[in-house]
Amino acid sequence: MTRSAAGARTQQEQMRRRNLSEVLRRVHKDGAVSRAALSRRMGLNRSTIMDLTAELAAAGLVREGVPAGQGRAGRPSIVVMPERATVYGLAFDVAVDRLLAARVGLGGQVLERREAVRARAGVDLENVVDVLAAFGRELVAGADPGALCVGVGASYCGLIRRADGTVRYGPHLGWVDQAFGAKLAAGLGLGLPVEVGNEAHLGAIAEHVRGAGRDVDNLIYLHGDVGVGGGIIVGGRLLDGDSGYGCELGHMLVNPFDGRPCLCGSRGCLEAEVGEKALLDYAGRSDDLIGRAGIQAVVALAETGEARARDALDRVGDWLGVGVVNLINLFNPALVVFGGMLRDVYPGAASRVRARIDAHVLPVSRERVLLAVTALGDDTTLAGAAELAFAELLDDPLHTLATVR
Amino acid sequence: MTRSAAGARTQQEQMRRRNLSEVLRRVHKDGAVSRAALSRRMGLNRSTIMDLTAELAAAGLVREGVPAGQGRAGRPSIVVMPERATVYGLAFDVAVDRLLAARVGLGGQVLERREAVRARAGVDLENVVDVLAAFGRELVAGADPGALCVGVGASYCGLIRRADGTVRYGPHLGWVDQAFGAKLAAGLGLGLPVEVGNEAHLGAIAEHVRGAGRDVDNLIYLHGDVGVGGGIIVGGRLLDGDSGYGCELGHMLVNPFDGRPCLCGSRGCLEAEVGEKALLDYAGRSDDLIGRAGIQAVVALAETGEARARDALDRVGDWLGVGVVNLINLFNPALVVFGGMLRDVYPGAASRVRARIDAHVLPVSRERVLLAVTALGDDTTLAGAAELAFAELLDDPLHTLATVR
Repeated sequence: MTRSAAGARTQQEQMRRRNLSEVLRRVHKDGAVSRAALSRRMGLNRSTIMDLTAELAAAGLVREGVPAGQGRAGRPSIVVMPERATVYGLAFDVAVDRLLAARVGLGGQVLERREAVRARAGVDLENVVDVLAAFGRELVAGADPGALCVGVGASYCGLIRRADGTVRYGPHLGWVDQAFGAKLAAGLGLGLPVEVGNEAHLGAIAEHVRGAGRDVDNLIYLHGDVGVGGGIIVGGRLLDGDSGYGCELGHMLVNPFDGRPCLCGSRGCLEAEVGEKALLDYAGRSDDLIGRAGIQAVVALAETGEARARDALDRVGDWLGVGVVNLINLFNPALVVFGGMLRDVYPGAASRVRARIDAHVLPVSRERVLLAVTALGDDTTLAGAAELAFAELLDDPLHTLATVR
Repeated sequence: MTRSAAGARTQQEQMRRRNLSEVLRRVHKDGAVSRAALSRRMGLNRSTIMDLTAELAAAGLVREGVPAGQGRAGRPSIVVMPERATVYGLAFDVAVDRLLAARVGLGGQVLERREAVRARAGVDLENVVDVLAAFGRELVAGADPGALCVGVGASYCGLIRRADGTVRYGPHLGWVDQAFGAKLAAGLGLGLPVEVGNEAHLGAIAEHVRGAGRDVDNLIYLHGDVGVGGGIIVGGRLLDGDSGYGCELGHMLVNPFDGRPCLCGSRGCLEAEVGEKALLDYAGRSDDLIGRAGIQAVVALAETGEARARDALDRVGDWLGVGVVNLINLFNPALVVFGGMLRDVYPGAASRVRARIDAHVLPVSRERVLLAVTALGDDTTLAGAAELAFAELLDDPLHTLATVR
């Protein structure tokens, strides 16, 4: 074979890998998709698509068949479906006040889950890893015989160095430079690395893949926990910055000279003005209910018209509006999604947020933008962690499979 | 030929097109590059690279030879160079107080230029197009016989609908929904469309391709004219949002409740607090020198220690710092570049900007970011317009050549 023939062969193989990746990605995202639709959407002819889906089926990643409810009238349309029971990922979520773990099938369905509520203070790396690793082992033990774990993803409420899953900065749990990913991988003992991501980054990915932002290539996800984080999808990809610490929307300086102190050491950050503590302080409820329950109590009171709760929600709405205005002027997104505790807060604060947008956003950027709460309930960040777990498989299906088997 | 053989052939042709594009892009960016370096950087073998450069040379786009100053000692290294005299683009720049036009060779060198200073008020579409079209015709007439214009790009100080080059909103010249691109194309009569972009977006592209941000994939460019615009490069690509109106850094709300009025109708925008008018107002100089000369006078006075000028620069530095803090926390860039009038302002305001960064930026994002003034002098936006002119050629060299010839 001449050198350039070898080059052409290599290029053809690269192309085939890319096409396998693309087919599996679509099946994972859309759940069940016909070969005709794949052919149309990928611009490849039917026989090429058949070869590709056959190869993925032979590898045990997809299955071809007639979807339930079809096959009676007319010619049934054959669809390609993910092998969700036998190809799975483990997803973990470390939020400020709970730990979550799930076995998630290819295609994104949660097959089994574990959850632990925990005290906020004094939660060190070792305890968190012990709880999660035990959950993980149970979830693996509960899988079908012969099922294959293809990856592990974890969401954490802090700044993450993606390369090795180190938590660089997680003020709410008091973590600085903790080797979370490596320790969890060791605790699980599956011989798989644990990919760790920032919770709001992962939330944005989940909304984009299977939430309110399906098929929306420019969106912003705002996640409220105790703090406020953000994930920004630009042109279909997560904006993660030069070293993975982008999208720190919570530390946008909205009140530069008169702001409330923020856990990060600064003042007037968005998080300091609209986070849990701000809302509870404004509502005069700092000493009783805290956390999600506290937030929901204030929102419920505001709905009944209680003045102080109403005022608290309005103030949060004003500052949230300033933040959203800046984000829209900077990013010209098609959609802004609110998740975590902001899912509870946003509906009652929406009129204030919209008033700010009307007053301050450039008309051209205002004309199309939509605002919505997450479509994934309280599982937004967990769903994002599952996407991390599947990322390598989706990038190069057969090679990854050979590695993890 | 079977269908899948035909498919493979098509895929090979696509790959070859992509490779031709990539080679030409590198030659355009790097000026003169050896085949060995192309082979190494693109991961293709030498014979493939030789085929590609030979095809580009046969089309008259590049030339192979020994660069000046080499070829005496040892074996000369053959380099591939852009055909800059015979393959050119036209670049236009509509700034608030001047009009620029240039013939720019493949590789980015300005071969010939025209400039007109103009009054700020009452500048309508027709006058601007008349002046620019006349410049353009002169520049075409001045080209080598046989030279080929491969594209036309224009930079405009406002919000642009990229699809058709319409100026949606250009408050400084009072333009709303003006068909600038179409009119300029008609005025030039070259049978080529005019690609129009926002000045700061184009400045960011220029910095990324051949300025302070070469090889920096995450950078922010802040452009001061009368207003303040921005361009953001994320993962090597311009962030232009859902409809092309992203990066409106100038309308980030830095002073939400106590801000100066802004031309956009809002208050407290970054542009209102750090733009030309703010600096001149703070310095008490609104009635004498305005524009760039006015800015430079204030900066020069501040350097001598004159109190009011010094104070003006400090105030601008404080607000500029708030804006830069937010941008760093949001984007985690490796580099922030200041251009236009901010090139004059930044050095004298740098200490205030840095103080804000130290006080408010998260340590992880602060650890690597650099701040610099543009490396392209006053031609940053013009250079960006030239990149627009070459974009189609670089994307698909031979096909574009066949179209424009």
